Amino acid sequence: MSNGMWFPTLGLVAWLCCLSLGPVQGGKVLVMPVDGSHWLSMKILVKELTRRGHEVLVLVPETSLLIHSSESFKTEIYQVPFTKAELDGKFNELRTGVFLKPPAFTDMLINVQRLVNFTSLQVKGCESMLNNEPLMSQLRGGGFDLMLTDPFLPCGPILARVLSIPAVYFLRGLPCELDLKANQCPSPPSYVPVFFSGNTGTMTFPERVKNMIMSFVESYMCKIIYVHFDDLVSRYFGDNMTYKDLVSHGAIWLLRYDFTFEWARPVMPNMVFIGGINCAKKAPLPVDLEEFVNGSGDDGFIVFTMGSMVSNMPEEKAKQFFDAFRQIPQRVVWRYTGITPGDVPENVKLMKWLPQNDLLAHPKAKVFITHGGTHGIYEGICNAVPMLMFPLFGDQGDNVHRMVVRGVAEKLSIYDVTTEKLLVALNKLTYDKSYKEKMVELSQIHLDRPVQPLDLAVFWTEFIMRHKGATHLRVAAHELNWIQYHSLDVICFFVIILLTVLWVTLRCCLFCIRKCSRKGTAKRKSE
Amino acid sequence: MSNGMWFPTLGLVAWLCCLSLGPVQGGKVLVMPVDGSHWLSMKILVKELTRRGHEVLVLVPETSLLIHSSESFKTEIYQVPFTKAELDGKFNELRTGVFLKPPAFTDMLINVQRLVNFTSLQVKGCESMLNNEPLMSQLRGGGFDLMLTDPFLPCGPILARVLSIPAVYFLRGLPCELDLKANQCPSPPSYVPVFFSGNTGTMTFPERVKNMIMSFVESYMCKIIYVHFDDLVSRYFGDNMTYKDLVSHGAIWLLRYDFTFEWARPVMPNMVFIGGINCAKKAPLPVDLEEFVNGSGDDGFIVFTMGSMVSNMPEEKAKQFFDAFRQIPQRVVWRYTGITPGDVPENVKLMKWLPQNDLLAHPKAKVFITHGGTHGIYEGICNAVPMLMFPLFGDQGDNVHRMVVRGVAEKLSIYDVTTEKLLVALNKLTYDKSYKEKMVELSQIHLDRPVQPLDLAVFWTEFIMRHKGATHLRVAAHELNWIQYHSLDVICFFVIILLTVLWVTLRCCLFCIRKCSRKGTAKRKSE
Repeated sequence: MSNGMWFPTLGLVAWLCCLSLGPVQGGKVLVMPVDGSHWLSMKILVKELTRRGHEVLVLVPETSLLIHSSESFKTEIYQVPFTKAELDGKFNELRTGVFLKPPAFTDMLINVQRLVNFTSLQVKGCESMLNNEPLMSQLRGGGFDLMLTDPFLPCGPILARVLSIPAVYFLRGLPCELDLKANQCPSPPSYVPVFFSGNTGTMTFPERVKNMIMSFVESYMCKIIYVHFDDLVSRYFGDNMTYKDLVSHGAIWLLRYDFTFEWARPVMPNMVFIGGINCAKKAPLPVDLEEFVNGSGDDGFIVFTMGSMVSNMPEEKAKQFFDAFRQIPQRVVWRYTGITPGDVPENVKLMKWLPQNDLLAHPKAKVFITHGGTHGIYEGICNAVPMLMFPLFGDQGDNVHRMVVRGVAEKLSIYDVTTEKLLVALNKLTYDKSYKEKMVELSQIHLDRPVQPLDLAVFWTEFIMRHKGATHLRVAAHELNWIQYHSLDVICFFVIILLTVLWVTLRCCLFCIRKCSRKGTAKRKSE
Repeated sequence: MSNGMWFPTLGLVAWLCCLSLGPVQGGKVLVMPVDGSHWLSMKILVKELTRRGHEVLVLVPETSLLIHSSESFKTEIYQVPFTKAELDGKFNELRTGVFLKPPAFTDMLINVQRLVNFTSLQVKGCESMLNNEPLMSQLRGGGFDLMLTDPFLPCGPILARVLSIPAVYFLRGLPCELDLKANQCPSPPSYVPVFFSGNTGTMTFPERVKNMIMSFVESYMCKIIYVHFDDLVSRYFGDNMTYKDLVSHGAIWLLRYDFTFEWARPVMPNMVFIGGINCAKKAPLPVDLEEFVNGSGDDGFIVFTMGSMVSNMPEEKAKQFFDAFRQIPQRVVWRYTGITPGDVPENVKLMKWLPQNDLLAHPKAKVFITHGGTHGIYEGICNAVPMLMFPLFGDQGDNVHRMVVRGVAEKLSIYDVTTEKLLVALNKLTYDKSYKEKMVELSQIHLDRPVQPLDLAVFWTEFIMRHKGATHLRVAAHELNWIQYHSLDVICFFVIILLTVLWVTLRCCLFCIRKCSRKGTAKRKSE
């Protein structure tokens, strides 16, 4: 029995073709995206929805990094109370910060601080949009059927509630796992590793202790991270509504992961897994690039990017990479806009932007050097390319950990990377076959699915429009408070009953004893 | 925006066509079915696997009710230590028992007693097969890739372990929810209704109290129900292995329900929902039946069956139905093999077996009178026919409750059914439009899915063969005991730490106080 023999590839291709033949008259979709890499994958769904005949309107802040108008969809530009320079400043802070080693044990705090710093500006932008009465009245009259948004920022969920339309969320996850908490998804700390814990699904006793501690820390962090969001939401909707309460109303959660990346855990019926949505579309490489990588011969080539936000690094650090690349037979395609040494090695091609997925899909791609964002990781998994990973910020540390534990990647710290360390890691990844073998296995499992991620995302988005929500997938737990959810009131009731029964029994016994002893005394007296 | 406008019907049809064009060379599948209605839906998957080129071998007990050899798949008949008469006797006990009203509050106990009574005979059959050395050695040498089984009986899971092949389970659920327990699926009693509790997902405080009590009762019942299974399993595999431990190794759980029937609740990544798998295939009605139902005019007709096992009822009870049918304008197609009165009404057609799904798919079908088995319920949902339900045994009480609460069915008790009650219920279901409207809504949601249930079942069965299991979907919770799962050891550890810190602090304080007071005394003395 040869592997992969029954892949219904033909069928899926035909299905995709037929999707394109489907009726074009559609619904009205309002899109509130999040800038940066978050937008890059959401854009794939937005374009597909437009192609399928839906009227899509994307709300774009006047100063943005990656969200621009397009021929594929309509945009509505709204004013924000910050300039392009201020926004760039915030991003630059983030960019330069990632190369500065934080003091020991402050990693998580610094991550949280960066996050709050970044989102607080975005919250201001959001608030300004919500106060933009002409825009809001235009949206109110827009007759939208659905809000497609990434709840990483609060604007989308707030707008969905203001316009009374169902929301479809498109995300990798929320900081401190607010997505799971808001969606009432159980996460037993005994086997679901908490973010930043460095644990896997299988934990020893000390790891479980650490996991439990981290889950308390996480709950505390949640309060800090979402303080601006909670404030905005409660000001808008009153009743002390928190951001968690608000996002809990999401109809469908389109989650950019699956269980080749994430550890198996309980899920909820309205969670749809679309990991790898970003690596379905492949295009031929530009001629010069194709020539360069093809010229790498049997040694193959390395793809090196640090994500959409980070394209340069301090000169001294870059030197370590240039020196390492000089000593390897592979060619390197590197997205790098920083200062270059006078003698860039011949086997290195520097580019301002590179077609990452197309390069990884090339049969000569040997290693992928990446920061560990989920987009890049899934492109690595889809194309079965082992990875050398440098986690920079946010969820990347945990993402990288998942890949390293699965034996498909090596991890190095960007803070103390040296030419020697690089050479050792690259040699391991290139010549130790186990990395490639495990990656091929992971890739085959990931790619073997009944419906392609983009089709699944389209299906559920349209499902919500067809049925005006998905109440049948919403658990009744949303109507319970913490005490009720954990049945603490019921347990208390049982305890009260038990104590009452004990007390009554005790009183009866005492009464009987007293009665008997009295009778005994009376008898003795009469005797 | 008209409803249902983007259904990718064309695409799915094309996909199905392409599946049929797919490669035919396949794997070797061993099937251990459960007799009765359980087999009827599993057979659909078995036939489809054969059609797709897999070599399928179905193990059939020499005395069985509904499992017979077929041209579509190979069978291996094994001896069992009971005769056809004994088996029929057991089934008849069950059949006649369902019309006898149990004393108040004993409903659940009687159900459990019936179940244990029935399964204990089957367990004997299973044991005899496992001791059938020639058959076992033939199976060991069969080179099977997969075991497809219904864990309602222990034979399949035991065989899968003996042959060291992954198991795919095909079921509606197990008594006392052992399926969920074995698969580590969280079921918070605050919003997941326990079987026989009569609760829905949304519960009041007294209902939650009842749910908690029922969950304790259920745990106790589990011990009684599975005592024979546990005994057999521990004798075979030692180490005090329970049946729950054994079935926890299932690779994929193909579950014959979805969330139009079940209340939304947490699920696990290896749970695949294939509710409605039995109602995809529709055939034209036989000419005489088509004529009969077509002749019903605008009044339409009623489909009446009590499942594959029960086709008759006590004469006096049947009379109530005949008398009611005599007074309605609808025609009735009734699967009935019992004693008939001399004057069977003209609008009633009695049949020994009827094409239930094809009849329900007829546009003139108005009401479905059913016992509330999940096969029938899904045929009702698929075809959007409101139901009059008479729960008889097992899960049927709970199944019926789900439908009644959703406003698509009326429930009557078979114990005290009268002509008047029947007429009232049938009139409500026929002339109160809300039943039909809600049923149409439910049906639309149920039918609106990215992949048809049969294709999904085929996909995951083949997935398990391709990848020799699905370890990436198996939660690490399986390696934890009860204390570890609930983090009780971790909590104890924290309590010990806390108490130690308190004790040390207290000792320090006491030491300081003593020191100070001694100094004070010494000072006073010296003064």
